[in-house]
Amino acid sequence: MADGLNMSNRIRRTPYTEQVIAAGVRGFSVVNHMLLPKAFQATIQEDYWHLREHVQLWDVSCQRQVQIQGPDAARLVQWMTPRDISRAAVGDCLYVPIINDAGGMINDPVLLKLADDRFWLSISDSDLLLYAKGLAIGGGLTVTVDEPDVAPLAVQGPKAEDLLAALFGEHLHRIRFFKFGWIDFLGTRQLIARSGYSRQGGFEIYLEGGHLGGALWETIFEAGRPHDIRPGCPNLIERIEGGLLSYGYEMSRATNPLELGLGKFCSLNSPADFIGKAALRRIAQAGLARQMRGVLFDGGPCPTCSQPWPVLAGDQPVGQITSAAWSPRLERNVGLSLIDRAFWQAGQAVTVASQDGESRPGEITDLPL
Amino acid sequence: MADGLNMSNRIRRTPYTEQVIAAGVRGFSVVNHMLLPKAFQATIQEDYWHLREHVQLWDVSCQRQVQIQGPDAARLVQWMTPRDISRAAVGDCLYVPIINDAGGMINDPVLLKLADDRFWLSISDSDLLLYAKGLAIGGGLTVTVDEPDVAPLAVQGPKAEDLLAALFGEHLHRIRFFKFGWIDFLGTRQLIARSGYSRQGGFEIYLEGGHLGGALWETIFEAGRPHDIRPGCPNLIERIEGGLLSYGYEMSRATNPLELGLGKFCSLNSPADFIGKAALRRIAQAGLARQMRGVLFDGGPCPTCSQPWPVLAGDQPVGQITSAAWSPRLERNVGLSLIDRAFWQAGQAVTVASQDGESRPGEITDLPL
Repeated sequence: MADGLNMSNRIRRTPYTEQVIAAGVRGFSVVNHMLLPKAFQATIQEDYWHLREHVQLWDVSCQRQVQIQGPDAARLVQWMTPRDISRAAVGDCLYVPIINDAGGMINDPVLLKLADDRFWLSISDSDLLLYAKGLAIGGGLTVTVDEPDVAPLAVQGPKAEDLLAALFGEHLHRIRFFKFGWIDFLGTRQLIARSGYSRQGGFEIYLEGGHLGGALWETIFEAGRPHDIRPGCPNLIERIEGGLLSYGYEMSRATNPLELGLGKFCSLNSPADFIGKAALRRIAQAGLARQMRGVLFDGGPCPTCSQPWPVLAGDQPVGQITSAAWSPRLERNVGLSLIDRAFWQAGQAVTVASQDGESRPGEITDLPL
Repeated sequence: MADGLNMSNRIRRTPYTEQVIAAGVRGFSVVNHMLLPKAFQATIQEDYWHLREHVQLWDVSCQRQVQIQGPDAARLVQWMTPRDISRAAVGDCLYVPIINDAGGMINDPVLLKLADDRFWLSISDSDLLLYAKGLAIGGGLTVTVDEPDVAPLAVQGPKAEDLLAALFGEHLHRIRFFKFGWIDFLGTRQLIARSGYSRQGGFEIYLEGGHLGGALWETIFEAGRPHDIRPGCPNLIERIEGGLLSYGYEMSRATNPLELGLGKFCSLNSPADFIGKAALRRIAQAGLARQMRGVLFDGGPCPTCSQPWPVLAGDQPVGQITSAAWSPRLERNVGLSLIDRAFWQAGQAVTVASQDGESRPGEITDLPL
């Protein structure tokens, strides 16, 4: 029972929690002060295979929206991210690292441009609302910063598109990757984006109005029965193989976007004024000391990685694994680690000191796997 | 298993987690992205009686410190809180509501003044660091804002003082309530405050240096055996009876400090410039529409309150209970709720609609109980 989570009012339920429990969830995590389902099938290997072949319904309400609107909204959003957002159009989703003045990661949300003066930041696990609010007050900006009643429901997997198009309209086929459109649901207009925290394709419905949650879940679930739909959640194996980083695991204020491999989202030479620009330029000029890499390693299925695992080249510590899982497809363990420069080439032999006391041989690899 | 918590790197272990698990913790919650033990004995009633009579050791590492230092440190801290801190001395602890420009609660930390230009804010469950950092960057203040390697360990209960004085020195008897002093531990100097999240007295050791955690826990636990020391944690029954509010339960951005009964910590007429001053003055002038109150109610031991429970006067909704528990001392259920003005007098008859479907008769009461 050492890993039991005590439910409470402080850890918020979602509009789908009742359905998730009825569907047999086997555990929760807490993200943004809200419940996130962690597993449904007997093993995450089973969830993994199903996700790759069929379609799953994910309660990702914990991807809270930080809504920024008003005359200075675009200015505030640009100030928070090294990515140049000047050419973003209404209907675009943009993955935007958010950094502090030292270049350290604060969050890595998806930005949705709803209007020229209205944005949602769909956040990972830190109170980005408070950073935005502090910047707005401190900088005297004319914006409102709040958290609307929006609870994303993800539909992920190769059969997601056909299922949703049959349910909500053929126009969904024309929504491109990282764009959003609209669907009608019970007389309401709801935002739908081709996006999601997997590499298997799919959509996220940003449901506005929590009272509609149960109906939306049931409607999609019923329509999905012919497609073998199941309840699901972000899958640890699939996201590691896909190189999808997670704030709090791979990222923190102590990591910068360049070493995390997010350089393509950092417009260091744009005219845009953003926090941390000087720091990132210094980091880029000095050259990276370490970089996010994959690690493949042996010794049978590894335990849960609930504390960083040293990665060694010979006797020398060269990194720390922050996420790890057994891949039933690769029949090896897969992990993510920042790796020191001299050792980050694919094929570099390493050993992983997992928390069960094992010393496991392995090697550095490119991502995705 | 619907309430199982999946351990992970994102939810941080503490310097005491190994000891806490060895001591038989029966579940964790998550506060500030970190583990907080939730129960040790078979029931929280048993924990409650023990806390009131003996001494307990609590891992409250999740009370993270937001460290603010530099020439503008005092200015930034004062800007964040309606409490006048101008007369605070080094060695003082001050309970300080932190609010936004609408008067909504952001956090309710304890402020520790370490020097005229160095403060710790010992926080409840929101990323106050990001608010402070945003204000500092936005306002162009000359401060650093960071989270030091400090993990508070609370020693609570009537026998705490004698135990700690025997262990660390008789000077502890002279530390007054909400003041801090220093102790020596294994060659290090550590901050100790007479404070804690109970009404049973005790101290909190703000251990700097996580590698010392195991040794500190073991040292106090061994010395406490003659006092019947046990592992413990903030006790739901005791805190409700004591009127100790909890951010995320009773408080959020949608509540203001005046209605929460924190008016004595709001210096509306001080010359200090703080965020939300105009909003709080407007609220004070208009008069409170609701106020935090206790609710005593019947119907046998209530279930866990994991969603707000309506409080009704006749058919009329007059509040929502956000924390509730069975008190074995009062032999009734105790709860906390904001209650509408016309119904907040002690003795007002109400019914509580608990989430097990029961309608439970009760009445409004003063706090503490």
